[in-house]
Formats: sequence, structure tokens, C-alpha cells
Amino acid sequence: MNRLHAAVSLAVAALLSLHANAQTPPIGAEVLANAPADAWRSPDPARTVYLDLPAGRVVIELASDFAPAHAANISTLAHNGYWDGLSILRAQDNYVVQWGDANAGTAQARPLAPARGKLPAEFDRSAAGQPFTALSDGDIYAPQVGWSDGFPVGRDPASGRIWLAHCYGMVGAGRDAAADSSNGAELYAVIGHAPRHLDRNITLVGRVLDGMQWLATLPRGSGALGFYERPEQRLAITHLRLASEVPEAERSALQVLRTDSASFTQWIEARRNRHEDWFISPVGHVELCNVPIPVRPQP
Amino acid sequence: MNRLHAAVSLAVAALLSLHANAQTPPIGAEVLANAPADAWRSPDPARTVYLDLPAGRVVIELASDFAPAHAANISTLAHNGYWDGLSILRAQDNYVVQWGDANAGTAQARPLAPARGKLPAEFDRSAAGQPFTALSDGDIYAPQVGWSDGFPVGRDPASGRIWLAHCYGMVGAGRDAAADSSNGAELYAVIGHAPRHLDRNITLVGRVLDGMQWLATLPRGSGALGFYERPEQRLAITHLRLASEVPEAERSALQVLRTDSASFTQWIEARRNRHEDWFISPVGHVELCNVPIPVRPQP
Repeated sequence: MNRLHAAVSLAVAALLSLHANAQTPPIGAEVLANAPADAWRSPDPARTVYLDLPAGRVVIELASDFAPAHAANISTLAHNGYWDGLSILRAQDNYVVQWGDANAGTAQARPLAPARGKLPAEFDRSAAGQPFTALSDGDIYAPQVGWSDGFPVGRDPASGRIWLAHCYGMVGAGRDAAADSSNGAELYAVIGHAPRHLDRNITLVGRVLDGMQWLATLPRGSGALGFYERPEQRLAITHLRLASEVPEAERSALQVLRTDSASFTQWIEARRNRHEDWFISPVGHVELCNVPIPVRPQP
Repeated sequence: MNRLHAAVSLAVAALLSLHANAQTPPIGAEVLANAPADAWRSPDPARTVYLDLPAGRVVIELASDFAPAHAANISTLAHNGYWDGLSILRAQDNYVVQWGDANAGTAQARPLAPARGKLPAEFDRSAAGQPFTALSDGDIYAPQVGWSDGFPVGRDPASGRIWLAHCYGMVGAGRDAAADSSNGAELYAVIGHAPRHLDRNITLVGRVLDGMQWLATLPRGSGALGFYERPEQRLAITHLRLASEVPEAERSALQVLRTDSASFTQWIEARRNRHEDWFISPVGHVELCNVPIPVRPQP
């Protein structure tokens, strides 16, 4: 295959036979290939959920440090099979895919109990004691940006607050007009350009580690905001389960590059300045959501 | 429908019955509803191409001011039916969909003549005399950003250069390692978070005005860089034609909000500060690619 980025795959192939050289500016594929075992972590199955769709599995890591009440409620709902047989309700191009109970708010709504029906807004939290790997390139939306505990974040030293950022693949809890009207039963995932204006306007609850393609390729809804107009257009959810409650043989064995590792710092630099042969200009800058957090199958 | 952004559709409905009030901060839907007829333009059919896929039509406006050689070559190729029966070769999640001749570079390649096989790189151009509507919110990748002639752009006052920016829906010409190795026969469209690191590394040739969903929902390829591994996974292109060569009754009648209009300036502000009831914080900042250029059916 020629054209756009074909040179990247050649570069990757070539690297496999090269001795890593500390004098060479880092290339992404090389950084990942050379990352030591302890730069990778296995997500905790007790804070990971599997959204199983007919086409495949979407693996979501819950951000328990940022949205503890939502993560707990989602865990309770998943434990009780709340979403099994419910459906994808909305797919808005370049924005979000959303799932939950089409009858929410009506007499036919599936009961949430023993999960809670209403939760406090978890738009941000104290930055005190929260790990933070800074990105030095600046940001349009937040005084500071970087990563904390495996998630992209914004931070404000003036207010001492930190919050999750709406990058591609982030998962949040839909709400009505009131800030405290979400409960985690209706969830959305970002499938387009980062809608960072949603940061601190809604509670983010986690991030898709694997399987984004099963959400991003869903037919777009023709109704307002991408909602499906006819019930038969909705895709039924097979299961949404806690990974810890799925038999071990059926789990998705993934590893995530630690955002507080030296390898991740090299990864940022490799994304900031592209030294692959294909690039004419190495660029010199990188934006938060253009530094995806690497995930790989467990070796 | 409750939850995420349901309030927006209510706000839109409510606005239709409200008298516009200059004292009220602008809301996006209201700006568009109130834009005068002369704030909208009809794209020139001679610089618009239709990529017709089995599911629907993708309408692409060519950026003749930024990539004149590529736009001319693409017009020649379209005129000669070059892409008809060729296929979508690649769909990489959160990145690009790419189409062209799977046999390019081989003896089986479809001939390009009378189109040219090699073109100069058109990564940027002189900013002199080129219209520019500035976005004052800053940018991570370029000294200045804004819009020119209906396209998102970066600009550098020091060098006097201006260039197209890789926002969602932008279309570019794949190339090999050499800067001047593209010819417009293999094209890609951005289907994910803006890969701005490609700016000035490759020639952008236009923007999708309508039908992004037909590209963005394509199954992702399982090969390296999202290429389809088996020929039967490729989707055949029905036609790629110049709009001016399609019978008038079969054309897509669209209008684009002029990026040099007062309405577009209001639109930027409406995207920067969200005054819809749903938003808790109006935000105060907006990034280039989070200001989509509005397109509507011709009234």
C-alpha cells in the first residue's frame, strides 16, 4: 500500500530489527516496543466494565477517583444486569453514542434499585494528592492539562481542582438540566473531535480501552441530536458487566501504559515531534487529545 | 428523550417562537435561524465533487485557492470517471478513511492520464490577499488560526504563509515519502479527532460538506493503519463526479455559512460561550475544530 503513512508501517517494520539508540529522537512504535514491563498496568477488573454488543466488546475503565459515586452506581447496575437487553439510543456524527433505557422517566422504565436514582454532580475534584503528568504544550480550555491515573485531565492551580477531559473514547453520564440529575444509567462515549466544552458541565465516568470501533461505526440516528427515530433502529445491548464478574477465560486481557511512567513521557515526545521518515516537519507541538493512552493485549 | 443535551432541542424549539433580542447572548441555533440570506453561499458546482457510495452521497468542496494543482487534477480524474468502480481501501478508527486504486503503483494500476501523475506539494501558500477570519482563542499548533474562504486554516504572520487545518471532515491527498509524490488520485477524509500534526505535512484538497456519516461509519480495517486486508472487504465507489457534470435535478442543493459574514462571527461566539439552558458553565473558550462551518439544505 502506498500513499498516506505507508512509510510509517515500513518504519515500524524496520525498527523491529534495529538496536534502540538513546541518541535517536523517539518514534512512537519504538517507545512502546521498548517500554519495560513495569511501565504497563493491567486494569482492575473491579473497576472495568464490558459493554458487549453483537459486533464485539467495548472495554471501559471506570474513573473511580474522579467519579466515585457514579462508578459505584454503575457497578451496582452492571452487577444487576440493568443494561442487558436495553439499547443504543443515539449516535450523533462527530459527537457521541449514547445508551440506556428508552423508557427512562416513564412508568415503563426499568427499575434502578438497589442503585441510586440521583447522584451528586462529579464534574471535578480536589487536585490535592492526585497524580498529575503535565503536558507542557498548553491548552485552549484549561489552565493546565495532562494525565492522572490513566485519564486525560484539566487542572487549575488557582482553584486547586482537577477534572477529566472529553477526549475521543471518554465515557460520561447523561443528565437533564439539573447538574445533579445523572445517575450513570444513561451513558455516552465520545466518537468524534473532543467536545471539550462539555468538560466540567457533565460527569465523566471512564474511558474506552478497547472496542471503540463498535461504537464509532454505528449508523447515525436521523432524529434531533442523533437519536434513533424508530425503536427498531436501536441496537440491543447483549450485556454490560463488571469484568470481575465475567469468568476469567472470557475476560479481555489488556494492559495500559502507565501515564506516570518514563515511557509515557517518551511517548508524549514521540507524538509531539514525529521523526518517522514520512513526516516532512516533526511538528513541535501536541494537543492533549492527540496523545492517546496506549493499550495493548497482555503479552 | 431525557439526559444529555435533551435541553438543547427544547431550547431550539422555544427559540422558534421568540423574538430575537440583541441583548441576549447568542445561541447557535438562533444565530443560524437569523442569518440573513446573503450570509449563506451556494458552493460552486465546478469545484464540488460527489463521492457516491451505496449508502449515500459524500459532498466535497475543493479548496482551489489552497491546492489549485490538486483540485485541477481531481477535476480531470472525476471528469474521466477515474474513481468509478475503485474502492475504499482503508478505515482507521479515530483517524482517516481513504479511497483510490488498490493497484496503484503496479502494472494493473488504472491509468491517470490525461491527469498528471505527480504534483507539487501544496502544503501552504502565501497569505497575501487571502481572506482570514481570525479565531482569538489561540491554538496549540499554529501561531494564528481561523477561516479562509470557507475552510479552517492556520496562519503564520512571520512567514506570511497560510494553510488548511486537519479538522474533522477535511479531505487530503495521500502521498508517499516524497513531499511531491501525491497526485490526488488517492484521497482521505478525517473521521476522528483532528490530526493537526498532519498540517503542512500533506496536501489538503477540500472539505466534506455533507455525508460524513457514510465515511465515518465504515467498518474499520484490521490491517496495519486500518487498511482492509482482503479485497472483498473494500467498498466499491459508485461514482466520484464533479457536481457540475451531474444533471441539475440530481445535485445536492446545499448552502454554507460564509466564514467572512457577521453571522459566522456570532456563530463563533455561540460556540465559545454556550448559553443554552443545559450548560452549567458557558465555557469561555473554543478551539478551531470545535467551530464546525454550518451547512444547510438550500431553502
